[in-house]
Amino acid sequence: MQQADVAILGASGYTGAELVRLLATHPAMRVAALTADRKAGQRMGAVFPHLRHLDLPPLTTIEAVDFDGVDLVFCALPHATSQAVIAGMPRGPKVVDLSADFRLRDPAVYQQWYGHPHQALELQAEAVYGLTEFYREAIRAARLVAGTGCNAATGMYGLLPLLRAGVIDPDDIIIDLATGVSGAGRSPKESMLHSEVSEGYTAYNVAKHRHLAEFDQEFSQAAGRPVAVTFVPHLLPQNRGILATIYVRGDGEEVHRALAEAYEGEPFLVVLPYGQSPATQHVRGSNFVHLGVIPDRRPGRVMVFSTLDNLTKGSSGQAIQNANLMLGIDESAGLMQAPLFP
Amino acid sequence: MQQADVAILGASGYTGAELVRLLATHPAMRVAALTADRKAGQRMGAVFPHLRHLDLPPLTTIEAVDFDGVDLVFCALPHATSQAVIAGMPRGPKVVDLSADFRLRDPAVYQQWYGHPHQALELQAEAVYGLTEFYREAIRAARLVAGTGCNAATGMYGLLPLLRAGVIDPDDIIIDLATGVSGAGRSPKESMLHSEVSEGYTAYNVAKHRHLAEFDQEFSQAAGRPVAVTFVPHLLPQNRGILATIYVRGDGEEVHRALAEAYEGEPFLVVLPYGQSPATQHVRGSNFVHLGVIPDRRPGRVMVFSTLDNLTKGSSGQAIQNANLMLGIDESAGLMQAPLFP
Amino acid sequence: MQQADVAILGASGYTGAELVRLLATHPAMRVAALTADRKAGQRMGAVFPHLRHLDLPPLTTIEAVDFDGVDLVFCALPHATSQAVIAGMPRGPKVVDLSADFRLRDPAVYQQWYGHPHQALELQAEAVYGLTEFYREAIRAARLVAGTGCNAATGMYGLLPLLRAGVIDPDDIIIDLATGVSGAGRSPKESMLHSEVSEGYTAYNVAKHRHLAEFDQEFSQAAGRPVAVTFVPHLLPQNRGILATIYVRGDGEEVHRALAEAYEGEPFLVVLPYGQSPATQHVRGSNFVHLGVIPDRRPGRVMVFSTLDNLTKGSSGQAIQNANLMLGIDESAGLMQAPLFP
Amino acid sequence: MQQADVAILGASGYTGAELVRLLATHPAMRVAALTADRKAGQRMGAVFPHLRHLDLPPLTTIEAVDFDGVDLVFCALPHATSQAVIAGMPRGPKVVDLSADFRLRDPAVYQQWYGHPHQALELQAEAVYGLTEFYREAIRAARLVAGTGCNAATGMYGLLPLLRAGVIDPDDIIIDLATGVSGAGRSPKESMLHSEVSEGYTAYNVAKHRHLAEFDQEFSQAAGRPVAVTFVPHLLPQNRGILATIYVRGDGEEVHRALAEAYEGEPFLVVLPYGQSPATQHVRGSNFVHLGVIPDRRPGRVMVFSTLDNLTKGSSGQAIQNANLMLGIDESAGLMQAPLFP
Repeated sequence: MQQADVAILGASGYTGAELVRLLATHPAMRVAALTADRKAGQRMGAVFPHLRHLDLPPLTTIEAVDFDGVDLVFCALPHATSQAVIAGMPRGPKVVDLSADFRLRDPAVYQQWYGHPHQALELQAEAVYGLTEFYREAIRAARLVAGTGCNAATGMYGLLPLLRAGVIDPDDIIIDLATGVSGAGRSPKESMLHSEVSEGYTAYNVAKHRHLAEFDQEFSQAAGRPVAVTFVPHLLPQNRGILATIYVRGDGEEVHRALAEAYEGEPFLVVLPYGQSPATQHVRGSNFVHLGVIPDRRPGRVMVFSTLDNLTKGSSGQAIQNANLMLGIDESAGLMQAPLFP
Repeated sequence: MQQADVAILGASGYTGAELVRLLATHPAMRVAALTADRKAGQRMGAVFPHLRHLDLPPLTTIEAVDFDGVDLVFCALPHATSQAVIAGMPRGPKVVDLSADFRLRDPAVYQQWYGHPHQALELQAEAVYGLTEFYREAIRAARLVAGTGCNAATGMYGLLPLLRAGVIDPDDIIIDLATGVSGAGRSPKESMLHSEVSEGYTAYNVAKHRHLAEFDQEFSQAAGRPVAVTFVPHLLPQNRGILATIYVRGDGEEVHRALAEAYEGEPFLVVLPYGQSPATQHVRGSNFVHLGVIPDRRPGRVMVFSTLDNLTKGSSGQAIQNANLMLGIDESAGLMQAPLFP
Repeated sequence: MQQADVAILGASGYTGAELVRLLATHPAMRVAALTADRKAGQRMGAVFPHLRHLDLPPLTTIEAVDFDGVDLVFCALPHATSQAVIAGMPRGPKVVDLSADFRLRDPAVYQQWYGHPHQALELQAEAVYGLTEFYREAIRAARLVAGTGCNAATGMYGLLPLLRAGVIDPDDIIIDLATGVSGAGRSPKESMLHSEVSEGYTAYNVAKHRHLAEFDQEFSQAAGRPVAVTFVPHLLPQNRGILATIYVRGDGEEVHRALAEAYEGEPFLVVLPYGQSPATQHVRGSNFVHLGVIPDRRPGRVMVFSTLDNLTKGSSGQAIQNANLMLGIDESAGLMQAPLFP
Repeated sequence: MQQADVAILGASGYTGAELVRLLATHPAMRVAALTADRKAGQRMGAVFPHLRHLDLPPLTTIEAVDFDGVDLVFCALPHATSQAVIAGMPRGPKVVDLSADFRLRDPAVYQQWYGHPHQALELQAEAVYGLTEFYREAIRAARLVAGTGCNAATGMYGLLPLLRAGVIDPDDIIIDLATGVSGAGRSPKESMLHSEVSEGYTAYNVAKHRHLAEFDQEFSQAAGRPVAVTFVPHLLPQNRGILATIYVRGDGEEVHRALAEAYEGEPFLVVLPYGQSPATQHVRGSNFVHLGVIPDRRPGRVMVFSTLDNLTKGSSGQAIQNANLMLGIDESAGLMQAPLFP
């Protein structure tokens, strides 16, 4: 198979490492460049010892990358940095951005949630939102794809088909979500120390998490009217995995049918039999999403469960799935690894 | 201080061990008897090595206990067994039962949720529901107190004052709850193995958990009308701790004020400043409950958070608090240990 | 590529599930049959939900398997059961056995450690010990290969080249080892409950673990004289991963050189630079072994570190690597997945 | 009971918080002052929410503390800072220092291991090494007590009686040790993030850990001749607990007897029956040490196991035990809480 050459900008973070992990056995992509500004000069295997068996290019600065001959760039840089870097790159390579920089179509909404004006409005204008199953054709044609928030993806997989099908009340949606700590990244923070996290569970960013902006944008578009949900994320004492428990009003079987129909034939979306709920440990390390629907004992109320691995389907796996589409490769190439359990 | 002699029936389970742990430094109770039918003859320190420094009576069968001279019995036996054993005991000692057997005042409701007729209706008639802060005077006078469900207690601490005060809509209450695994007990189960639980999060008993029966009973009484909530429990990859995230309709500040007023002066109930949320790791191993209130971005919607340690305030700590009242001991005696963190 | 048809006997345990996980993306093997006596009739995805996306044959009894057309059988049955089942099978398919049944060449030693006479001596006579890198040519030609103990493999990777090269004192070897809980299997045991294991570390089977028999056999053969080591295994509060810390007498650089030379060109064995030590989290879910050598401050004493994933390189990954050899497939086919971190 | 007034310098770290936790129910000490330079002005309950129920003085700078009326100071400051602060304090209050600053009697050894000359030699001269059971009378009379290293204490409890009794070979001692992460403190470090630590086990500071200096000092003194051990610490995926597995040469029963005799009557040291080994989870959160002895299959070789909670008996619990002695309070006051399990 012909190999596409890809570069990973920001390879010293967890999403960068996850890209390398998945690309290690990808049949049609080859890692041509890796950057990590503060660790330039080091080997990837020194920064991430689980990758030490791989023959990889050394970490360099972004300036040192020769973008000629690079077919696609994965940009795993921090928010705000990403837009500046991509704006300064040659337009040759396609780009999958894993930051939040190009997710929000309305610059005013971006400014409201991220606290500063967007610095690359023309790029925002061409960016396609990267929720693969819902934007597949646009992604295939795109030059720049914006990876979704990992929590946002988890909630959207459970809700978008329901809002499109009109089977739930769009004014009474509650997303209670729990996520592992790897989403917080590798930068040292007191709140992410093992001593603080393990044997503990707590809510954070209650009612003000930035992924609400993605929910508002996508849910309103799907419903054809403004939709504002309640969203409470929690931090789990585990590394990987997000589970959303979504409380909606509707008919349980109709809700289940809408999900099952929407995801029929999708390689990564698995809708469980009616009445069953999924678990984060059963998607760990994989690109799969498991979805379940259980009716409440109170008629007209339904719970929808959606789970995925935040670093894989919620981030780097999604990025590769989109890159596959953009490069004309089989969409699931390199992504069919089964989850790691136990 | 004069010592009360207490017996613990069912000392080989986690709630039995937790009673012994707490009583080890209790100033006014002495463990006079310990039973564990299948482990009779063994030392407690062999069954629970963390207690091996204690000078305790050996484990015996229930039949071998001399209830004369026992002031109070903690009954930590399985559901259904408990009612038979207590019915067969002499009426001398007071009893704190930690099982589900005497929680439900209506025998028909008991039968509906537990699948068989109650075998000790006259005992049920005299039992007092053990949610200390709400039944304090009745507990003080009781001979038989029924410990609450640990999930039930967590939800009730967040909701009872609100229903009593009438500051929330009783028809739109959702309790999303996450609990550690120790509540499932020490009997070997595949689903509670470390390999199955760790690095994982999932819902269980969705919309049909038996603690719903306690919610219905207590919430309806508090509101003076039928109240049926939605309740979804989840299993956490940790041993101790329950956090309930409760979605209600009302005014955030009013809700916060109702909780703060209800728990003013309570030794174990801590209401956080408005806008803050608690964490299970900050009540670990203690008898404290931490409560928080945060308003949603959508006006009229509020989240209430309630957390406690299922084995302590949710079970054995509550039992000792009630026993203190029943024996005329200071209510917080033996229970003021600070949480263990990290 | 031509597909070999394989059967997995005992697919409802962790090593069975790990075989299926790895075979899901194997380019040259196809799962033709899955057995699980007590779960016959169920779907694999119901027993192991992380595999629910796969199109697999249903679980059957062993009797229901048609061994005609099966090229190779992975036998993941309990010890003692395995020898009876394999003895009763047609001799057509090749066999990789993951139990302890065929690891010990001397039947008297088997009886001494396993407490009963071996029931299939003629099979034992033809079995090849499955430590791939040391028995590669014999495995290629074998009909029956005996998977090694997972702890045994970890220790042997660190020691066999040193004993062969004669660079350490064979009379003063201490193997201090720590292992995750998944090696204990999926059968419910009190000692493997999350409540018992998490936040805890303890030794078990001190100086009497059955993998000592494998150490004795292989170390003595490598050294050309009897070698008896000290071996203390510990249980870690984690699911996967074994780390052996091996205390030997010799020269550090010589020891390091002997390992580096022995494993040069090996696809799965990575010797770290002198003075570095490996970590279990960096081989998780993979077929890699990481080895390190650090000299003690006391001259003439050296520490060797060896780590692998017990379910992969320590068991099912090793089994597939051996099966690849036996079937004439590329040895590393299906096994190059990078470790999962974090 | 009369209350001693104590100050805690450096209350925003884990050992500071652990002191407050234990003092919360201490019958004869009252927290009169708490300092935390960078968090001065905050409430302890904001820095450590598990302590929010306590009525504590606010955090201040050290300069703001009025040492008049303070009976004893717990100094929980970082290494090197501690000696400067204590040197600058009035000599009125007694001092228990939890840092490494006053552990090493020989200033040259201090400089060798800590890389700079000691700044308070006269204080070092009067400091008593705080391993309570071995320096009890000196501690009782001391003005300044140096808390031991937590790893050092774990190893010394297993070895000091054996070296004193002369029942082991002092030239062949290996200490293989595993410790939880809380010993690394609350300062954010990449290597202590939950994502890095959980599901993982690795050695660190191999053959060069600073606690070796304490081993050398105390073991040589106990044996009456120079003793240098091999010491390899490992990091566990858990917060609390240290287990040392110590490999020695001697007779198993003699070794066991020496330990049992040495610790007879000690309130916190529990020697298990011969042939049993302890577990970290059975001392969690307590001041107890559990010790075990198991003979190797090779005659003349013995394993000694020693476990304690690094934050309690390994640090803050030890500090309070010593303070009890220094203030003429019952030695075990405030420290008899049973371990928290599960």
